[in-house]
Amino acid sequence: MATHQFEPDHYFSTIGSHPPVLRVQPGDSVETTTVDARGHDSSGQAVTSGGNPMTGPFYVEGAEPGDTLVVHLDKLLCNRPYGWTRTMVAPNVVDPEQVPNMPWPAEGQELANWRVDNEAGTVTLVEPQTSLGALTLPLAPMPGCFGVAPDRGEAISTATSGPFGGNMDYRGFVEGVTVYLPVFVPGALFHIGDGHAVQGDGEIVGTGVEISFDVGFTVDVQKGRRIYWPRGENETYIFAAGNARPLDQATQHATTEMIRWLENDLGIDPVGAHILMGQTVEYDLGNIYDPAYTMICKMPKAVLP
Amino acid sequence: MATHQFEPDHYFSTIGSHPPVLRVQPGDSVETTTVDARGHDSSGQAVTSGGNPMTGPFYVEGAEPGDTLVVHLDKLLCNRPYGWTRTMVAPNVVDPEQVPNMPWPAEGQELANWRVDNEAGTVTLVEPQTSLGALTLPLAPMPGCFGVAPDRGEAISTATSGPFGGNMDYRGFVEGVTVYLPVFVPGALFHIGDGHAVQGDGEIVGTGVEISFDVGFTVDVQKGRRIYWPRGENETYIFAAGNARPLDQATQHATTEMIRWLENDLGIDPVGAHILMGQTVEYDLGNIYDPAYTMICKMPKAVLP
Amino acid sequence: MATHQFEPDHYFSTIGSHPPVLRVQPGDSVETTTVDARGHDSSGQAVTSGGNPMTGPFYVEGAEPGDTLVVHLDKLLCNRPYGWTRTMVAPNVVDPEQVPNMPWPAEGQELANWRVDNEAGTVTLVEPQTSLGALTLPLAPMPGCFGVAPDRGEAISTATSGPFGGNMDYRGFVEGVTVYLPVFVPGALFHIGDGHAVQGDGEIVGTGVEISFDVGFTVDVQKGRRIYWPRGENETYIFAAGNARPLDQATQHATTEMIRWLENDLGIDPVGAHILMGQTVEYDLGNIYDPAYTMICKMPKAVLP
Amino acid sequence: MATHQFEPDHYFSTIGSHPPVLRVQPGDSVETTTVDARGHDSSGQAVTSGGNPMTGPFYVEGAEPGDTLVVHLDKLLCNRPYGWTRTMVAPNVVDPEQVPNMPWPAEGQELANWRVDNEAGTVTLVEPQTSLGALTLPLAPMPGCFGVAPDRGEAISTATSGPFGGNMDYRGFVEGVTVYLPVFVPGALFHIGDGHAVQGDGEIVGTGVEISFDVGFTVDVQKGRRIYWPRGENETYIFAAGNARPLDQATQHATTEMIRWLENDLGIDPVGAHILMGQTVEYDLGNIYDPAYTMICKMPKAVLP
Repeated sequence: MATHQFEPDHYFSTIGSHPPVLRVQPGDSVETTTVDARGHDSSGQAVTSGGNPMTGPFYVEGAEPGDTLVVHLDKLLCNRPYGWTRTMVAPNVVDPEQVPNMPWPAEGQELANWRVDNEAGTVTLVEPQTSLGALTLPLAPMPGCFGVAPDRGEAISTATSGPFGGNMDYRGFVEGVTVYLPVFVPGALFHIGDGHAVQGDGEIVGTGVEISFDVGFTVDVQKGRRIYWPRGENETYIFAAGNARPLDQATQHATTEMIRWLENDLGIDPVGAHILMGQTVEYDLGNIYDPAYTMICKMPKAVLP
Repeated sequence: MATHQFEPDHYFSTIGSHPPVLRVQPGDSVETTTVDARGHDSSGQAVTSGGNPMTGPFYVEGAEPGDTLVVHLDKLLCNRPYGWTRTMVAPNVVDPEQVPNMPWPAEGQELANWRVDNEAGTVTLVEPQTSLGALTLPLAPMPGCFGVAPDRGEAISTATSGPFGGNMDYRGFVEGVTVYLPVFVPGALFHIGDGHAVQGDGEIVGTGVEISFDVGFTVDVQKGRRIYWPRGENETYIFAAGNARPLDQATQHATTEMIRWLENDLGIDPVGAHILMGQTVEYDLGNIYDPAYTMICKMPKAVLP
Repeated sequence: MATHQFEPDHYFSTIGSHPPVLRVQPGDSVETTTVDARGHDSSGQAVTSGGNPMTGPFYVEGAEPGDTLVVHLDKLLCNRPYGWTRTMVAPNVVDPEQVPNMPWPAEGQELANWRVDNEAGTVTLVEPQTSLGALTLPLAPMPGCFGVAPDRGEAISTATSGPFGGNMDYRGFVEGVTVYLPVFVPGALFHIGDGHAVQGDGEIVGTGVEISFDVGFTVDVQKGRRIYWPRGENETYIFAAGNARPLDQATQHATTEMIRWLENDLGIDPVGAHILMGQTVEYDLGNIYDPAYTMICKMPKAVLP
Repeated sequence: MATHQFEPDHYFSTIGSHPPVLRVQPGDSVETTTVDARGHDSSGQAVTSGGNPMTGPFYVEGAEPGDTLVVHLDKLLCNRPYGWTRTMVAPNVVDPEQVPNMPWPAEGQELANWRVDNEAGTVTLVEPQTSLGALTLPLAPMPGCFGVAPDRGEAISTATSGPFGGNMDYRGFVEGVTVYLPVFVPGALFHIGDGHAVQGDGEIVGTGVEISFDVGFTVDVQKGRRIYWPRGENETYIFAAGNARPLDQATQHATTEMIRWLENDLGIDPVGAHILMGQTVEYDLGNIYDPAYTMICKMPKAVLP
C-alpha cells in the first residue's frame, strides 16, 4: 500500500497501450500532476502539445482483461491560480438555424480567463468584460478525461471516449468518487488529465475552466468482475457512463450497464430491477460536445435493497 | 381573479383546437380533476378511453398568437389511493442486443400496482412480488402531459409533445412551478392530464405511477412576449424544455430557448450569456420514451445577474 | 369503376379527419388538381394559404381501420410552365460549424425560378444567375406530400410525416407507382399535394421545383390486410417508407416494414427473409429536411422467390 | 511506375501508424492479397486473428499531411470459391420492440455459406436451407475496409471508420473506382482488407459475403490538395463519404464535403453549388451496422458544369 510520487516528463494525446510510466500494486496510491488541455503546466509553461495530454499510463500489477480496475479519486487540486474557457456555445448544441446568430469570437478572442482561488473555493471570470461582471462560481474540480487502454490495440484520441473511459467531461467525477473501469489489457494502463476547475453540464462551450492539477488516486483490482462501461460511486449514488452519439445511444449504454449492475452485482431480480429504475432512476448529461457524447445513469443508494 | 370549479364530462386524447370547456380571465384560477392515462377517474371508473385523456381545453381571454400563456401549478393532488406502472424498461432505452434478454411480461402481467398515501407522502409497491419488497418512495406528483393548442390547426396525440407542450413527462413540473407556453391560437386552449404520483427521470418504463389528480392552476397572459418552447420557473431555477428526437435535437431546442431567455428577456449580452451557460448550465432528462423526447435546460437563479 | 373529375375549392394544411370532398368506390379513379407548396395554382394565383395545402380528403367507401388503401398514381402532370426552389442547403444537412459559411440569401432573394417544359421533358434554371447557366434537368414529377387521416383524431401538419404518409418528399413516388397506406379511419381520407417537377434525394434545400399538378389516381381497398408504414411498388422494386428522426429510426421503421412484407405477405421464412435482405436490400433517402425524415427500404423484385 | 507484388505475412486489426510493409512511389501499382474478416486466406486457413485484418500499411513516398492520397482500385478478385454471411438483420437496424421476434440463430448456426463463381460471375447461397433455395446473385466484389493512418497517432479498430476511411462497407467501392483519402501522416500508410463478394446496402446483417481477395491498386499523391473525408469517383458520379452516428451526422459530413468539392475543387459559385445539389444530389447508404455509420453523397458528372 505504497504511495508513489510521480513527476511526469512526457504525455500522450491518445489513450492506448503506451509504455507505462510507473508500475503500481493494487492498493497503492499515486500522487502526480496533470497539465491543462493545451499542455500547459502549473507554472503556465507549455510542456507538451495540446489536445488533452494525459499523465500516465500507470500499470496496475495483476489487472487482466476481464477484471475491473478501481480508481479512488483522492485529490483533485488546481495547482495554479488561473484557467481558461471558450466563450461560445458549440454549434452542435443549438438549433442549426441559430448558428449564424451566435457571438462568433474574433480571431484571438476565443478564450475567457478565470481566476482560481483554492482558499476561497472560487472561480472568477476576469475577462472578457461582459454584463456578468466578475462572475464568481464555487470551485468544483474534476478531470475531464481519464481511462484505461482500449481493446484490440486501439489508441484513441483524448478528444473522445468509449467503453474504456476517455474524454467524458462529466462534472460528477469529483474528489471522493470511486471509479470502476473495465480492463482490456494487462496492467489496465490508467491515464488521467484535462483538469477542470469548474464545468457546466454538457461542457457546452467545449471546455470547463481548463487548468493543471495536483492529482492523487488509489487503485485496486477486482479480479474476474467484468463490467462493460465506466462506473462510479459517491456517498449517495451509484452511476454508469455511456459514451456514444447520439445521446440516445449513450443513454442506452448507460442504462444497460445500470441494469447489469442491479441484476448481476446487487442480485436484484430482473422485474424488480426494472420496476425500481422506472420510478427512481436519474440521468446526468456528461458532455454533448465531444465526438462521443456522455450520459450518466444514476441510482440513489437509498432505494437499493 | 375568480376561482372556477370545473367538473369535466369529456376528455380529448389530442391537444388541439377543440371547443373550449371553460372561458377564464387572466388572473383566474381553475380547480378541476384529471383522469389517469387509461381514462380512469378518482373512483377507479373508466370514464373515457385511454391514451392520456386531457381535461380542457380552457380558453384564456385575451391570449393571442405571439403571446405567452402563464400557468402557475397551484395544486397537484393524487385523488385516489392507488396507481399503476409498467414493469419493464422500454426497448428503445437499452442496447438493441439486450432487448431479448429483458423481463418481458406475460400477457396480463404488464402492470405493477402501487399504494398512494397523501398523508404519509409515500408511494408503495404492492405487486408484483419482487426482491424490492414493499418499496416505498416519496410522493412527488406531476402532470405528465399539458399544453396549448398547436399552430396550423394541428391536433397532436397526447402520446407526444412539441413546441406547444404535450406529453413531456418531466418530473420537474411539480406544485409551485410556473409554466410558460407559447400561444398559437386565440384563447391559448390549455389542456392538462396524465398525473403521475412519482416518476423517474426519462419515464423509462413508459409510465410514472399513473393516477387521477385534483388539479388547481392560475393563468395569466404576457401580451406580446413571444417564446418558442415551453419554459418553467421554480424557486431556484429557470428552465426551458425541448421536445424532439433524438435527444440531441431536444437538447438543441432547449439550449437555444435558454439562450433567448438570457439574451432577450434578461438582457444579458450574448458573450456573457454563452460564457455563463458554459460553466453553470444544467440539464434534466424529461422523457426518453415518448415519440418526441424531452430535454430540460436549466439555469440556477443564483448565477443570473 | 367510375372516373371522377374533381375541382377543389378549398385545401387543408393538415392531414386529418376533415370532411371529405368526394366519396369514391374502390376501383374508381379521380382526376383533380393540386396547388403548389405556397398555395398557388396553375394560373399562378394564390388560392389558399401556404404550407403544402392538400387537395382532398377523398373518402373511399368500404375502407376501415386495419385495411390497406391502394393508390395507383396514374398521372402527375405539371400544369404550369414554371416552378421555384430554395437556393441554400438547409442548415441541418451540413456540419454545424459550416452553417455560417453558407450562401445565406438576402431577404427577398431566397428563391430560384425554373422553367418547366412538359413537351421537352425538362426543367431549366432561369434565375438567379450562377455559374450553372441555364442548368437543364430531366422532368421527374412527384407529389411531395400525400397520405391518409391518422389515428386517434390527429390532424398533422403537412410539413411532416408519419405512419399515415404525409410530407415524405421521396422522389420515387412517380407516375406508375402503386402506393399502399394503412387505413386508420373509415373511408381512409386520402389527401395529396405539394407537387415537385424534379427533386434531388433528401430535398436538401427544403424544396423540389415546386409546382401545381394535374393529378390522376385510382384507389382500391385491401380488406383486412394490415400494414404499418407506407409502401410502394414499381416495375422493379417493392419498397417501404419509414418516417422519423433521426434517419436511424426512419431506417428502423422502413426495414421492419420490409421484413413484415417479406415474411407476412410473401411467405418467406424468417431466416430466408433476413439472409435475402442482407445481401440485396437497397435504401433511398426520401427527405432529410422535414421534421420527420424519410428513409426507403427497397427490395428488387428479381430476387424475390 | 513499378508494379509491386506483395505477399503479406502479418496483418493489423487497427488502422494506424504501424511500420510500413512496403514503400512505393506515386504512380506505382501494388498487387497483393487480403484475408477475410475472420483472418482466413484463399486456402481457407486462419493466418491471423479475426476482426477485419488489414493488409499493409503501404508507405507512399512524398505523401505528407495536408495532401490527398489517390488510390485507383485496379483489381478486386475473389480468390477462393466460397464466402460466408451472418443470417439475421442486426438489432440496431429494426424497431426496438421487434428485436425479440427476429430469427435469433442457435449457437453455432450464426453463419450462412455461399459459393462464389468468378467465371459465372455469381454468388450462390449453399446453406442454411430456406425458402430462398439456391439464391444466386451477381458477383460485385468490394473491400469493406480500407484507409490511411489517422491523425494524432490514433490507431482505430477496423470495426469502425472516420475521416481516414476504415470500415465504411460501401458497396460502391468496386473495381475501377478512384478513391481519394486525406493524408494525416508522412507516407499516408494505406491499409486494405475485408473483401465482400457481394453486399446489400447498409451491410444490415453485419457482413457481406465475406471472402479473401486478390487486390490490385495504383497510388498517386495530390500535393497540397486538402480534403476532409474520403471521396471517390467512377464513370458517372463523384461522391463523398461521411462516417459517424447517427446517420444524420454522417449525412452532414458527406454533404459538407461535397459542397467543398463543388466550390473549392470545381470552382462552382456557392449559390450555384447549393442550387445544383438541391435538385440533383443522390445519397447511398454505406453501412448502418458498424460503430460509425456511412452515408455517401453523390453528384452525377453529367450535371457538373
